[in-house]
Amino acid sequence: MRPRFGIIALAVDDLQASLEFYRDGLGLKSEGIIGDQWEHGAIALFKLEGGMALCLFPRSDLALDAKVAQGSPSATEFSIGHNVDSEAEVDRIIDLAKKAGARITVQPEKKFWGGYSGYFQDPDGHLWEVLFNPNFLPDDIVT
Amino acid sequence: MRPRFGIIALAVDDLQASLEFYRDGLGLKSEGIIGDQWEHGAIALFKLEGGMALCLFPRSDLALDAKVAQGSPSATEFSIGHNVDSEAEVDRIIDLAKKAGARITVQPEKKFWGGYSGYFQDPDGHLWEVLFNPNFLPDDIVT
Repeated sequence: MRPRFGIIALAVDDLQASLEFYRDGLGLKSEGIIGDQWEHGAIALFKLEGGMALCLFPRSDLALDAKVAQGSPSATEFSIGHNVDSEAEVDRIIDLAKKAGARITVQPEKKFWGGYSGYFQDPDGHLWEVLFNPNFLPDDIVT
Repeated sequence: MRPRFGIIALAVDDLQASLEFYRDGLGLKSEGIIGDQWEHGAIALFKLEGGMALCLFPRSDLALDAKVAQGSPSATEFSIGHNVDSEAEVDRIIDLAKKAGARITVQPEKKFWGGYSGYFQDPDGHLWEVLFNPNFLPDDIVT
């Protein structure tokens, strides 16, 4: 299996509210809700760098599409690591997320592994860690 | 906020078992468990294409690190989309995942949106959709 993936799909309760959080709050670009010509097909898509995409998908539709029972929201299934190039940028993004309505669960702080990070939760409780790791800098993946 | 992220961290119950699934079953390369010199610091890391990383992180340690209550496992929080370049490759990866011990929740099938995909769950129930989408091919992101 090729060591890659292209999409992270986040289960959401309110597609419009989550779209607004990521688009208007965090400033990610999106064409808005698409796929709503199909029953259970509505999503919101954000094109990311490197040919990646972030997709918002109603939780009930994910359950249908993947043929699994719909579970209760649970914040400790995963986190997305948004690595940036300085401690100041961690502070700036956490502040941006707060203004966008995110719950900040960890204010930026020095980490035992030598970096600096904070965490926020999006409107559905999904965790993002915003981190500065001197050994894992984002310039590596500029395309 | 720059439209990117670098890491997807998956919460796991048994770090060694999940490492074996991804490394030995799916064939992703890893140095094995690292960070275990720190209490609550053990992870397994897989370097992916494009400067990305897949990280396995014990669920209880994610809860501690992110300062959120540890929730029950729930399969419908997200899915990872592994986009490939043909229907045959979807079939091959789903078969590989099955041999690795994954639960196949959806056998590869034609999708209403014009592509072809199947789903599997890793040992912790995390969903991967293996998909062929003629409009979203992985060659875009070869680095």
